[in-house]
Amino acid sequence: MKQPLAQADAEQLAVTLKALADPARLRLLSIVASSENSEACVCDLIDPIGLSQPTVSHHLKVLTEAGFLTRSKRGTWAYYRLVPGTLQQVSALLISE
Amino acid sequence: MKQPLAQADAEQLAVTLKALADPARLRLLSIVASSENSEACVCDLIDPIGLSQPTVSHHLKVLTEAGFLTRSKRGTWAYYRLVPGTLQQVSALLISE
Repeated sequence: MKQPLAQADAEQLAVTLKALADPARLRLLSIVASSENSEACVCDLIDPIGLSQPTVSHHLKVLTEAGFLTRSKRGTWAYYRLVPGTLQQVSALLISE
Repeated sequence: MKQPLAQADAEQLAVTLKALADPARLRLLSIVASSENSEACVCDLIDPIGLSQPTVSHHLKVLTEAGFLTRSKRGTWAYYRLVPGTLQQVSALLISE
């Protein structure tokens, strides 16, 4: 951050960082990101996180609304896939010129 | 994030991201980071942010406790200096292998 951030840019970045700033969401995102094809079924995310399905689904919704994940329904289950480049964009903003 | 994050690492990263996830704090950090010698007097931060001195001081305290800034008192005023590398560390964690 070698230039002062404008108010609108700061507000947008703060919303994105708030979506990330939760231990369960960071763990969920890291599990999806490290899964085959960067995709995971919600059914495979509940046990490793150790939270209830509604809570896991809430966190996944926050990450989806913030643009980190996309959701698709197949049969009974929802699958979440990492949106390529989103974490890199946030990372780049923090150290931008 | 190509490996699932451990709970302790996720908790630590979440605390750091929470400290950043506020528009006023992002703006303050960007102003300090872009000042000469990456240092600014609190007296020069109040006007650009448009918040009261106690509010600005509170935000600077959060950023200091999170390790982004150091504080030194000279005469009447406190000066805040960017801790080199802290933003880069957060940035690297988000896109780590």
